[in-house]
Amino acid sequence: MEEDIFKKHIQKFVQISEEEFSEIKTYFRSLELRKKEYLLKHGDICKMNFFVLKGCLRKFFISEKGVEHTTEFAIENWWMTDNFAYEKEMRSDFNIQTVEKSIVLVIDKVNHDKLLQKHPLMERYFRMIYQRAYAAAERRIRFLYEFSREELYLHFRSQYPEFLQRIPQYLIASYLGFTPEYLSEIRGKLRS
Amino acid sequence: MEEDIFKKHIQKFVQISEEEFSEIKTYFRSLELRKKEYLLKHGDICKMNFFVLKGCLRKFFISEKGVEHTTEFAIENWWMTDNFAYEKEMRSDFNIQTVEKSIVLVIDKVNHDKLLQKHPLMERYFRMIYQRAYAAAERRIRFLYEFSREELYLHFRSQYPEFLQRIPQYLIASYLGFTPEYLSEIRGKLRS
Repeated sequence: MEEDIFKKHIQKFVQISEEEFSEIKTYFRSLELRKKEYLLKHGDICKMNFFVLKGCLRKFFISEKGVEHTTEFAIENWWMTDNFAYEKEMRSDFNIQTVEKSIVLVIDKVNHDKLLQKHPLMERYFRMIYQRAYAAAERRIRFLYEFSREELYLHFRSQYPEFLQRIPQYLIASYLGFTPEYLSEIRGKLRS
Repeated sequence: MEEDIFKKHIQKFVQISEEEFSEIKTYFRSLELRKKEYLLKHGDICKMNFFVLKGCLRKFFISEKGVEHTTEFAIENWWMTDNFAYEKEMRSDFNIQTVEKSIVLVIDKVNHDKLLQKHPLMERYFRMIYQRAYAAAERRIRFLYEFSREELYLHFRSQYPEFLQRIPQYLIASYLGFTPEYLSEIRGKLRS
């Protein structure tokens, strides 16, 4: 059934036959993960790209002061890696960790390159994936310029209501660049 | 000669024959622009994507308080549009304007889609363009979390020294989220 999630996601962007999908899926393996397992650790060479079938991942870095900053979440149908380090096969200065029990598809860089060579339709799929991801990142950069911290929270709440249900408060705070105390304060103010 | 710039850029990513490039270039037209000309205005439907052959563009929005915020610059070999509005053919809430006298290649969404359909090699090219742009945007989001304003300036200066030469101070300030006065202050401090 989990396979179907990926096939459906590809089909949102390109037409794909059963035969071709059967070949494509051989480039991936699936991993079942417990809560808080690491998929990438700061200092590791980033060789893998992850597609979430079930659950939730987060990407974070640790500042010089020792504070965790979550820069991204990925739920079902989202891709996640340290894209800069992945393309260049460099050491990453990010961590990727499960937020919940999760199932992910994994592909390594070597297989990913082969997949793109052998299946041009996947070039189209990934072109669209990266185009959307880039457009979303550009909007997010704008919001970081434009919004106050309270507005960032309100925007996040309206855009990703399902995240607020699933993700612990302290991680939401770390994503928004707040302390957990400051988030509680805003939530209190909004309730009253 | 300007055509060569684009051909060379494509060749950095994919192999392309003279014949195929001759066809590809028919999808584009080139525009010569004076300094401070607009290519996109807030409220316009975003139908065009721009590739800079010569010169420099910037993308900016105007905040509720009436302050201009420059979110991106594009020099030679860079693409620029409001990617979110472009994909969805929506009204943009950005402006794109030349910083210098510039020459750009222009493609509209309809021709861009046709180009990708007819020339699968351009799927590969744009997949790589968006992948890199996304990776760079992710890093930038991290810097916005991580760096103080002074560190943002130092980082920008070390990463894009040519921008500091070419781009007026008040636009650099608007990109870094500073007032021009604050930028002068930092520069003064660093000199002393």
